[in-house]
Amino acid sequence: MLFCCNSCGTVYKSEDVLHGFRCRVCGAPLEICNFIGNWHPRGFGLSRYQSMLPLKLVKSLGEGSTPIVSAELYGVKVYFKLEYLNPSGSFKDRGSAVSLSHAFSVKALCSIEDSSGNAGFSVALYSRVLGIEPYIVVPSSIAYGKRLAIEVVGGNIVEVSSREEASDVAKKISLEKNCYYIDHLSSPLYIEGYKTISYELFEEIGEVDAIISPVGSGGLFIGIYRGFSKLYEMGLIKKKPRMIAVQGVDVAPVYERLYGFKYLDGTSSLADGIRIASPPRIDEVVKIIIESKGTVVLVNDSEIISSIKELIDMGFIVEPTSATAYAALKKLIGKLMEMGAETIVIPLTGAGIKMLQQLKQLLR
Amino acid sequence: MLFCCNSCGTVYKSEDVLHGFRCRVCGAPLEICNFIGNWHPRGFGLSRYQSMLPLKLVKSLGEGSTPIVSAELYGVKVYFKLEYLNPSGSFKDRGSAVSLSHAFSVKALCSIEDSSGNAGFSVALYSRVLGIEPYIVVPSSIAYGKRLAIEVVGGNIVEVSSREEASDVAKKISLEKNCYYIDHLSSPLYIEGYKTISYELFEEIGEVDAIISPVGSGGLFIGIYRGFSKLYEMGLIKKKPRMIAVQGVDVAPVYERLYGFKYLDGTSSLADGIRIASPPRIDEVVKIIIESKGTVVLVNDSEIISSIKELIDMGFIVEPTSATAYAALKKLIGKLMEMGAETIVIPLTGAGIKMLQQLKQLLR
Repeated sequence: MLFCCNSCGTVYKSEDVLHGFRCRVCGAPLEICNFIGNWHPRGFGLSRYQSMLPLKLVKSLGEGSTPIVSAELYGVKVYFKLEYLNPSGSFKDRGSAVSLSHAFSVKALCSIEDSSGNAGFSVALYSRVLGIEPYIVVPSSIAYGKRLAIEVVGGNIVEVSSREEASDVAKKISLEKNCYYIDHLSSPLYIEGYKTISYELFEEIGEVDAIISPVGSGGLFIGIYRGFSKLYEMGLIKKKPRMIAVQGVDVAPVYERLYGFKYLDGTSSLADGIRIASPPRIDEVVKIIIESKGTVVLVNDSEIISSIKELIDMGFIVEPTSATAYAALKKLIGKLMEMGAETIVIPLTGAGIKMLQQLKQLLR
Repeated sequence: MLFCCNSCGTVYKSEDVLHGFRCRVCGAPLEICNFIGNWHPRGFGLSRYQSMLPLKLVKSLGEGSTPIVSAELYGVKVYFKLEYLNPSGSFKDRGSAVSLSHAFSVKALCSIEDSSGNAGFSVALYSRVLGIEPYIVVPSSIAYGKRLAIEVVGGNIVEVSSREEASDVAKKISLEKNCYYIDHLSSPLYIEGYKTISYELFEEIGEVDAIISPVGSGGLFIGIYRGFSKLYEMGLIKKKPRMIAVQGVDVAPVYERLYGFKYLDGTSSLADGIRIASPPRIDEVVKIIIESKGTVVLVNDSEIISSIKELIDMGFIVEPTSATAYAALKKLIGKLMEMGAETIVIPLTGAGIKMLQQLKQLLR
């Protein structure tokens, strides 16, 4: 497998991306070169789409084939994709299954990742299972529950003072210890994993009018769109969905890029999973929104809290970041109906079951 | 739908079982009368088997269609059924989906349940979604995390001094407030839900040589066997699996019934989900073990702890009670190989993700 920089044209071999997925010449995030794939769905979970993936999956932990539950909301049919029922409780498992398979294929003995949240937990779990020693770099401010999750599955915690410092330290350790740097914010392997969400949606409900997805690094948002684009290129669907990005009012780089200013209405500290000021593929996120005639919606903490409540009323126990997309739906529903959108999908990205204490406080 | 007492022949209408599923004449647990069903699997999750269920499911929260992950262990192929990836983190959701659909069909305004564990959480969730006010009777010794889970999904906690008192109080409140008594330990509706596990196993892997399942009330164990028996009667499979029951050394009524004495080797307080001294259907559990040429295996806390570890090594984050079946597999593996068992299934019943703190302490 080769990795390409679409910006300056540099090509890297598998062995050359052990320390991250940014082009060493120009800094752009790398892509997988020239992989086409075949549509032969077979079996269950992520491996059902093995023929659409650029590398052999080494091991399944039960990721993928997540339930789709529909609800009639304000006269529109909304499909919830329950990504929080993946093995470690988030959609990240789809990416980790691909990424750690790659780490395994290049015979990595250890992995390193800078994430204090779902990605850290997911990477630690998949690494351990493949016999790869995981190191997770976290800021000292990390929530106790998140630290616990990483520790329980055997992740070695490396504590640094701030989130910003974490990625520098991760890269440094990657070089020093010769550990595989997962780099989930930039890795195209995570995007490959997320594309399978679209394949599952297509197989179960067919064409989709609109997707409403939180955008942090943009990996999930891009993955879903690339997945549908692939199905479109293969002639399996006749139209691609409108892509609606959701960000918190506090950290809204995509909104700022599109509209040049940020409207401030409250705070969005609850949406901690999408507080990423510089998404590595922001250009692509913006391009997808424009091309698909989508939009970007900002939500604040009070909207997130009422959305968590309403989602629990529907039976979905999710973490605050996951509730942002539902909050956005409520704001957009009139517009979506005007547009004639009949099939709307919301991925519910992360489990609330691992943070019941925090949920209880919020729901008071 | 009618409910029958197979012991004394009394028949009850749906409206007559609002306060529990024990025969008011002789005390035996009630069964659903004369339901046959048709094999027309269609769609996803529990509702895929709607034609095999005795009542219409009202609402899906994404229960069922759980992943099956295989592993080669000691030269034998073992299939793990990841029941902990159900919506509230346990297999109980299959039963609650059926039971609360019944409560809804008889227009119950409130539900009551005496369980401090997975069933309480599951009942509270499914009740809330169907607009049925849930009351959960718990002993004052309830673990904080379990109480939290019930509260987050809107369950009203009724605290009593002991576990024994809880079911008396539940029955009393059921009568006073005219609330539907879920009675998951005796309800045949839970067993109907659990039968779908066998249907999924059949569709994905075909015939099964042996099932290793924890036995508390016996509902899961009986449900799985009844499911395979149904497939056998319908001519879809040629043999039924050997049924291997697992209990903790401390509370082992099935073992005592079969062997007349209890061998004591350590304690099994960690297996709190199966500490049920008088399973309502113990006769059927024993009959199934004998008929299927199965057995019963006892495990203790130290075996449970090492099993939790090994399961995490395989990528499965489960609660202690769930690890008992894997501990039993390790004890039995030689025997199973001698018997020529090639397809062994272990349901992993409950999520560890909701009790990371406890897991961390155990894994020290």
